[in-house]
Amino acid sequence: MDKTSLGGLVGGWGLVALAIILGGVGFGPYIDVPSVIIVVGGSIAVTAGQFEGSDLKRFTPALKVAFNEVKVESLPELVEKITFYATEIKKHGVMQIEQKVMEETNPFFKEAFQLLVDGTKPEVLEPLLETKLEHMGKRHGVMISMFGNIGGTAGAMGMIGTLVGLVAMLANLSDPAAVGPAMAVALLTTMYGALLGTLFAGIIESKLAQKHEKEVVACEVIIRGSSMIAAEESIGNIKMQLNAILTEVME
Amino acid sequence: MDKTSLGGLVGGWGLVALAIILGGVGFGPYIDVPSVIIVVGGSIAVTAGQFEGSDLKRFTPALKVAFNEVKVESLPELVEKITFYATEIKKHGVMQIEQKVMEETNPFFKEAFQLLVDGTKPEVLEPLLETKLEHMGKRHGVMISMFGNIGGTAGAMGMIGTLVGLVAMLANLSDPAAVGPAMAVALLTTMYGALLGTLFAGIIESKLAQKHEKEVVACEVIIRGSSMIAAEESIGNIKMQLNAILTEVME
Amino acid sequence: MDKTSLGGLVGGWGLVALAIILGGVGFGPYIDVPSVIIVVGGSIAVTAGQFEGSDLKRFTPALKVAFNEVKVESLPELVEKITFYATEIKKHGVMQIEQKVMEETNPFFKEAFQLLVDGTKPEVLEPLLETKLEHMGKRHGVMISMFGNIGGTAGAMGMIGTLVGLVAMLANLSDPAAVGPAMAVALLTTMYGALLGTLFAGIIESKLAQKHEKEVVACEVIIRGSSMIAAEESIGNIKMQLNAILTEVME
Amino acid sequence: MDKTSLGGLVGGWGLVALAIILGGVGFGPYIDVPSVIIVVGGSIAVTAGQFEGSDLKRFTPALKVAFNEVKVESLPELVEKITFYATEIKKHGVMQIEQKVMEETNPFFKEAFQLLVDGTKPEVLEPLLETKLEHMGKRHGVMISMFGNIGGTAGAMGMIGTLVGLVAMLANLSDPAAVGPAMAVALLTTMYGALLGTLFAGIIESKLAQKHEKEVVACEVIIRGSSMIAAEESIGNIKMQLNAILTEVME
Amino acid sequence: MDKTSLGGLVGGWGLVALAIILGGVGFGPYIDVPSVIIVVGGSIAVTAGQFEGSDLKRFTPALKVAFNEVKVESLPELVEKITFYATEIKKHGVMQIEQKVMEETNPFFKEAFQLLVDGTKPEVLEPLLETKLEHMGKRHGVMISMFGNIGGTAGAMGMIGTLVGLVAMLANLSDPAAVGPAMAVALLTTMYGALLGTLFAGIIESKLAQKHEKEVVACEVIIRGSSMIAAEESIGNIKMQLNAILTEVME
Repeated sequence: MDKTSLGGLVGGWGLVALAIILGGVGFGPYIDVPSVIIVVGGSIAVTAGQFEGSDLKRFTPALKVAFNEVKVESLPELVEKITFYATEIKKHGVMQIEQKVMEETNPFFKEAFQLLVDGTKPEVLEPLLETKLEHMGKRHGVMISMFGNIGGTAGAMGMIGTLVGLVAMLANLSDPAAVGPAMAVALLTTMYGALLGTLFAGIIESKLAQKHEKEVVACEVIIRGSSMIAAEESIGNIKMQLNAILTEVME
Repeated sequence: MDKTSLGGLVGGWGLVALAIILGGVGFGPYIDVPSVIIVVGGSIAVTAGQFEGSDLKRFTPALKVAFNEVKVESLPELVEKITFYATEIKKHGVMQIEQKVMEETNPFFKEAFQLLVDGTKPEVLEPLLETKLEHMGKRHGVMISMFGNIGGTAGAMGMIGTLVGLVAMLANLSDPAAVGPAMAVALLTTMYGALLGTLFAGIIESKLAQKHEKEVVACEVIIRGSSMIAAEESIGNIKMQLNAILTEVME
Repeated sequence: MDKTSLGGLVGGWGLVALAIILGGVGFGPYIDVPSVIIVVGGSIAVTAGQFEGSDLKRFTPALKVAFNEVKVESLPELVEKITFYATEIKKHGVMQIEQKVMEETNPFFKEAFQLLVDGTKPEVLEPLLETKLEHMGKRHGVMISMFGNIGGTAGAMGMIGTLVGLVAMLANLSDPAAVGPAMAVALLTTMYGALLGTLFAGIIESKLAQKHEKEVVACEVIIRGSSMIAAEESIGNIKMQLNAILTEVME
Repeated sequence: MDKTSLGGLVGGWGLVALAIILGGVGFGPYIDVPSVIIVVGGSIAVTAGQFEGSDLKRFTPALKVAFNEVKVESLPELVEKITFYATEIKKHGVMQIEQKVMEETNPFFKEAFQLLVDGTKPEVLEPLLETKLEHMGKRHGVMISMFGNIGGTAGAMGMIGTLVGLVAMLANLSDPAAVGPAMAVALLTTMYGALLGTLFAGIIESKLAQKHEKEVVACEVIIRGSSMIAAEESIGNIKMQLNAILTEVME
Repeated sequence: MDKTSLGGLVGGWGLVALAIILGGVGFGPYIDVPSVIIVVGGSIAVTAGQFEGSDLKRFTPALKVAFNEVKVESLPELVEKITFYATEIKKHGVMQIEQKVMEETNPFFKEAFQLLVDGTKPEVLEPLLETKLEHMGKRHGVMISMFGNIGGTAGAMGMIGTLVGLVAMLANLSDPAAVGPAMAVALLTTMYGALLGTLFAGIIESKLAQKHEKEVVACEVIIRGSSMIAAEESIGNIKMQLNAILTEVME
């Protein structure tokens, strides 16, 4: 479980609830089912229209990624593991690691080292893995932009809902006492849109982008490491090159 | 028929209609012909002014693309087909596939493999197909930006319409009872602009961009596959290279 | 005359006029000379301050470009012409075309083929023409951004004008009957700013950008064609390469 | 003196003054010292916080650049001068121009040709001058973004000032007669922010960017010219290459 | 201590305080604890949700960077130091500088010259240091975007808070006398959001970006200098190359 994703989400909604409670009018005036329908339903409909079916199916998996702990190792662990494999190969040959590679859970790592075990030449290995990384980036980019679009759509649907409410209110001014509550209801969709955009879509979009960035760095380390092993570079050189990514030279 | 495009569009407009019905004042106050004219007509006029005639003629075809099912094969099917052709050529020579290529419906695939049949050298084939892809990208980009511009223009025309309505109302405050309905009418153009931008242009723009991205990946697979066949690479290598794009190594 | 530019402009303004007429208060409340001065005059002043004198002088020529029919040939015509010249040169030598080149009206084409006639080597010709194209792009970019800036400035001057009007109105609330008309006048500058930005600057900006894109493609065809002629490539190859840009492989 | 910078600035402020005079309430309601303090002072404070001391010191020099006539020659003059130097060197050797170069006022030109006089090889000269140009671009970019940030900050401080004023007014509604003037004063900071952003920061930002672009082109001409002289290319070739940048092939 | 960061922050908040004092209603109406909770707390929660735990831990260090004087030398000092080391190495060999390098405080400089002392070849040294610089840029970019996101989130939470307040007020219009103060309180969250975005996040974001840019230039000088020493270039050439970055050729 990614504690910061969950904590941020729960904390954000909790603080809004707290502000409502402190406001003293209770939750009642803040709940309006038609307003929820137009904002949440409308955002779902627009998003469904904007994206391809194959990408819409990745909505729930993407949410899980945002809320699960990163599955890739920390960079120092990764460098250590690559150095370990490089040493094993130098000592006992590439066949020695075959069994271990089969048990790896990081799929990019597994694929890279299976190619190594298969004896793929470095000039084939590196562009192949870079193609994989590039296409992973495209797939991730679609999901990140999906949550970005949801944020924008939620705001637009909120504004549309408020306009629908305002027109209804203005067309029907006969009872002045009803103006306040009608106006309050009209504003609710704008509020729902802002909440959906800020406290849901905006958090997921940014978190997915952050995880993607970290994953790209990990994949780059794997690409560089496996290419250097394939090119039979010295263990010392491999270590030095990979540590260059690691060391935090300056804050 | 692209179900998500249609579903999103119908769902979005349906939910707005539902919200209006639930509002209890009926559709009457939401319909104003002059407001439709200034927003829809104005957006058409500005778009016509912004783009070249040859691109404006592509408006309806672009709409069809957004609402039709993608005509390109799924990536795994495409890779399988390319591998099949590569194997046929290895076995029986390039002439063997000539008839089959003629029957292909994917025009980019057809063109690439016709060039192969014609014996085009790999160093000519690859840049030629990349030029084609680049110019396809430019043509698609114009249409994507056309729908993006429509969204922006609809919003601007909505605001202009509201200002026109507000000035008329303010210049004529003699009858206080008319203020509410006049204000309601003034807000309608803003609402129409937001609806046109969010529930039409925004959906089409994003859907076209998504389909373009998928098509680019398919074309890249075709370019790489046909270039490797032209360069007489081994079937095994072709398979491995194309599968690199395919495998979803990580979510 | 570019019919879409003119049609869009006339249509857009006409629809706004129609909306005003349908509003029933006549044109009177929509006309306020000081508001025109602050929005139009202010936008001119800011634009003059933002750009260099040498670029400001290109304002009227740029407007003419936006409203004139493109002077470059259609791509198929261009490819045909280049193939014709290539064939002539193959048959009768480069001197044969000298007279015809002198009569060309497309200046980029003329310059490229005059360099060919002068016997410029392909390794000099191509970078030279690309430098020309790049600098043409910079000059066009300045004018496109000028109209983009005008749109932004018109909106900002409209807001400033409205604030000037609101302050005057609020400072002088003694006569309640004057509030409505004063408010109406204050809103006029915002309306003028939006009209100037949407129905003038926005149209010209986009149209210039579209024409620029088309011109770049034409220049790229000319560069590729003339370079291939200079490199003495076969007519068949020249045709195939240039047609790659032409064929609309997919919508 | 750059007439368009000055004219734009004076014209813009003059038109706003004119609009105020035509409004009929005089300058009085538009002047409020605390509002000036929060907008102008706040923008200065935020800008000081955003940038490094060494860049803040370049504020006044940057303003001077925006209001002074460009010191670089026009492109045709520059090309002529480079051709003249190239001819002199061909005829009398590089030492002949040493004295003349010392008297040049364009510092980039002077530096490039002093390196030529010092016998710098073309493969050293070109990357060296490009490094200089790149770092000049970074320094200019900081100042351009400084004025861009000032525009954004002025708008934000204007909004903050208006909120401060509104809260004061709303917290103190006992005297209804004071509401109008209090509201007017509250709006003044928004107006000041928009004026500072549009009629000062926006003009300077754009003018600096325009001058930077022109200077980059001039430097590129100098780099290309001096590199070709160092590479001992023919006068004819130098002329042709430099004129490629010059000729306005199309509008 | 970075005087401009601190001065800007203190000055900005001081001027807002001054504007409140000059407003004459005292600080009372500007302080509302629930509003602080929803804006500040909400921004913290959203930021926590948007970023990874490992990056959130860098919040305080990043703040320190923004408020501390740059630790890197000025460029002229840096060039002088590199030239000094280059001369020492030429005279006494690379071992001579080992002790001095150990005492360096600039970590990037230290690492580059330790690699030199270790006899790293130039073709290994340069890409290694560039990898380090690139990853430093990624780490810095995350923190710069974190403060950028905080600015956007603060504004959004301010708007949400104002909507919460407005709904409470409108749902409860029975006491007209309470409308003014309730409205004032509702506006406070928007004001807090704008203050947090402009006078905190905006300043830190820009200052970090400025410091990052200066640091990148310093690192580039170190990379170029150490690579040239490794390549055993002449002292004269090293000086000339490094000074190219230094000289301010034009304002």
